[in-house]
Amino acid sequence: MQRARFITIEGGEGTGKTTQMTRLANRLSSVVGEVVTTREPGGSQGAEQIRNLLVNGPPERWSAETETLLMYAARRDHMERLINPALRHNAWVLCDRFHDSTRAYQGAAGGAPASLIDALEHTVLEGLRPDLTLILDLPVDIGLARAHDRNDGEERFETKGHEFHERLRQAFLLIARKDPERCAVIDAEGPPDLIEARIWTAVKERLGLSD
Amino acid sequence: MQRARFITIEGGEGTGKTTQMTRLANRLSSVVGEVVTTREPGGSQGAEQIRNLLVNGPPERWSAETETLLMYAARRDHMERLINPALRHNAWVLCDRFHDSTRAYQGAAGGAPASLIDALEHTVLEGLRPDLTLILDLPVDIGLARAHDRNDGEERFETKGHEFHERLRQAFLLIARKDPERCAVIDAEGPPDLIEARIWTAVKERLGLSD
Repeated sequence: MQRARFITIEGGEGTGKTTQMTRLANRLSSVVGEVVTTREPGGSQGAEQIRNLLVNGPPERWSAETETLLMYAARRDHMERLINPALRHNAWVLCDRFHDSTRAYQGAAGGAPASLIDALEHTVLEGLRPDLTLILDLPVDIGLARAHDRNDGEERFETKGHEFHERLRQAFLLIARKDPERCAVIDAEGPPDLIEARIWTAVKERLGLSD
Repeated sequence: MQRARFITIEGGEGTGKTTQMTRLANRLSSVVGEVVTTREPGGSQGAEQIRNLLVNGPPERWSAETETLLMYAARRDHMERLINPALRHNAWVLCDRFHDSTRAYQGAAGGAPASLIDALEHTVLEGLRPDLTLILDLPVDIGLARAHDRNDGEERFETKGHEFHERLRQAFLLIARKDPERCAVIDAEGPPDLIEARIWTAVKERLGLSD
């Protein structure tokens, strides 16, 4: 049996992360056994309560620094109460957003200093690191149009403007360039079946799975 | 005119911080002009929303690490939106609890590692430091009995047990021993008028004020 892996799915608004996570979980579970899907901010009871503070309200509700701290508070709760226990029980964990999102949203696009994010990553995660990160990449206009159509009411980040989202996209691509062993950039333009196939190819290749 | 100072009031449950802060603010304002009183966790709109997550619910609602991160998220918002602007406008700021409470409650008594607290103090506060910290000291049994009588509904920390509160008291005394220039320990046993007089003597002496 394969040891359990921790896979994160990253990308800007409307890149199709949620749809693709469900599809990947289905494929994976037929190959590796138990797969837990989760999301950030959120994923545990306490973290979901912190999420409510983060995703609602006007864009200026929190500074980038306060947002970073709230994200890490939610992440710590999520890690303690869901991610680590699942991995210990040998379940694979698939997470919609993780630490790279903080670096992209609050850091590169929001302006929170790298020194703060580095310190949190180091002291809060205590070595927890994704085995594989799928970065779904899409031109900003297409992503924002999709996110707008979704209309889920959680729009605090969507309303931050085109320039913010362009910085976000470049930040994710930079993360992938800096850490190519962990990160796979997936072209997220095209029909969902095609994206699903691209993701599955990348996952099998990176983690040495066969169908 | 004296430059504006930042004074924090620290201590365990039921040590009389709130009562004494009001009295000190009255005395101070007649000598130095505008005095802003505030409290942590809270003190700004966002921080008060984070406070609701912290002071309610069962003791095990958050781990000490998550609690530390939530405290610093609230503190950052409070600092950006109230403390720093007030000091820039030359108002004195009196704050009921600040960073020493995190070190005592979440650190020494709760078990959050000093490395996490050190990193947050360094990266989040960006040099903001109280000019004077008054540590109200009281035997644990007397403080808890007073806090119990207060019955304000915010009892998550009060229910953490006698041993927790004894560690808390010792932690505050240790903070004072390590930083005697900033901290003044005030014997908080006795009638409020007497404690008020002790505090006023300490403040005048430490900050070079005259009545």
